[in-house]
Amino acid sequence: MNSMYQQLMQLPLFQGVSTDVITALVEKLPFHFLKFRNGEQIFAAGDQCSHIRFIVSGRVRLETPCDHLRVSLLQTLETPHVLAAEYLFGRETTYPYSAFADGPCGILQLRKSDYIKMLAFDKVFLFNILNYLSSGSQRNTASILAIKDGSVVERLAMIVDALTVTGATDVAVRFKQKDLCVLLGTQRTTLIASLDKLADEDIVDYTSNELRVLDLSRLAELIHK
Amino acid sequence: MNSMYQQLMQLPLFQGVSTDVITALVEKLPFHFLKFRNGEQIFAAGDQCSHIRFIVSGRVRLETPCDHLRVSLLQTLETPHVLAAEYLFGRETTYPYSAFADGPCGILQLRKSDYIKMLAFDKVFLFNILNYLSSGSQRNTASILAIKDGSVVERLAMIVDALTVTGATDVAVRFKQKDLCVLLGTQRTTLIASLDKLADEDIVDYTSNELRVLDLSRLAELIHK
Repeated sequence: MNSMYQQLMQLPLFQGVSTDVITALVEKLPFHFLKFRNGEQIFAAGDQCSHIRFIVSGRVRLETPCDHLRVSLLQTLETPHVLAAEYLFGRETTYPYSAFADGPCGILQLRKSDYIKMLAFDKVFLFNILNYLSSGSQRNTASILAIKDGSVVERLAMIVDALTVTGATDVAVRFKQKDLCVLLGTQRTTLIASLDKLADEDIVDYTSNELRVLDLSRLAELIHK
Repeated sequence: MNSMYQQLMQLPLFQGVSTDVITALVEKLPFHFLKFRNGEQIFAAGDQCSHIRFIVSGRVRLETPCDHLRVSLLQTLETPHVLAAEYLFGRETTYPYSAFADGPCGILQLRKSDYIKMLAFDKVFLFNILNYLSSGSQRNTASILAIKDGSVVERLAMIVDALTVTGATDVAVRFKQKDLCVLLGTQRTTLIASLDKLADEDIVDYTSNELRVLDLSRLAELIHK
């Protein structure tokens, strides 16, 4: 259990909280620890986000599908990480992605009503969640205002960046080529030329139905520099 | 002063808070009331967001410039409204837009450090700000996942929607045509055809350097339906 606390303390939401506060919190609130086997589904896109969930061991693979197009973004979150903290409140309280255990994986979860108690328990939690949600809210505006050349490469970078959780790894896009063209508002030849450009620079590699991001920070630099 | 409280109580951040709590709060925390003359600047894009600011009388005109392109979004917020609550915390604590009084206008403001006290003062505040910031954070993902046809019309609707504050009126885009083409990743002929299509449906009208949104909800429906 001790190492689980140490994991918790590395989470953005727990940063700066003292061990004493965490110990008191874990005693007071009904945290539940769940184990998942490799490949097991933790939740599905569209499920109600009724609990705050923390990855405390192993890895989780997220799959975010487009609503109308056969294009999905895949990404991996490792411990320690919070899952979808921005979907507990607000207009949309269902998950935009499905989550699967990628290898054996441990999740610590807390009901929404107890999570509110947690936020009120110590000002550091409040401060951390304000930072977390505000950053999420700012990202949208920032990447639109940063548009420089209106290219397909830039648009692809913007979409991947917007759908990627901070700290995610192994980011990939699975697609039907026709639908990826629609998503990016372009034709097949321009799509291929754009992917080739990114592949030449070792930022992505791709096949006929999947694009793997090899260097996420350089992809993000295309829009935020 | 009483009518100012009533204005406050209509704000998203104050909804559900009792009159007693607001009275206690205003007695306890150093709210400042500022008056601005027509056209006077309240803050500039890039200024530090050091206070939470509420419009308690009149109207405020916001101007959001692109970083690299000569394209700006203009919008009006009327009383009661909060200004840029998502820029007090997070990665970016500077305003993305300039704000000007549009007619005589009254602003109630509170320092960031006192604003944190306000949030901790009553759980309703906490709940409201979690809803407000979470919705902002979700918008980005939602409008990308909702892409249907990849058209320039859809892309324009997405950009306007992303930069428009919920509840804003008189939304307009001021532009150099060349730069608007770059922002939308398109050519002049397609841009004009797209704007004509929206104008024919009375969703926008436009001149050579400004587009006015006539029906914001129908523009938003293009992406969220």
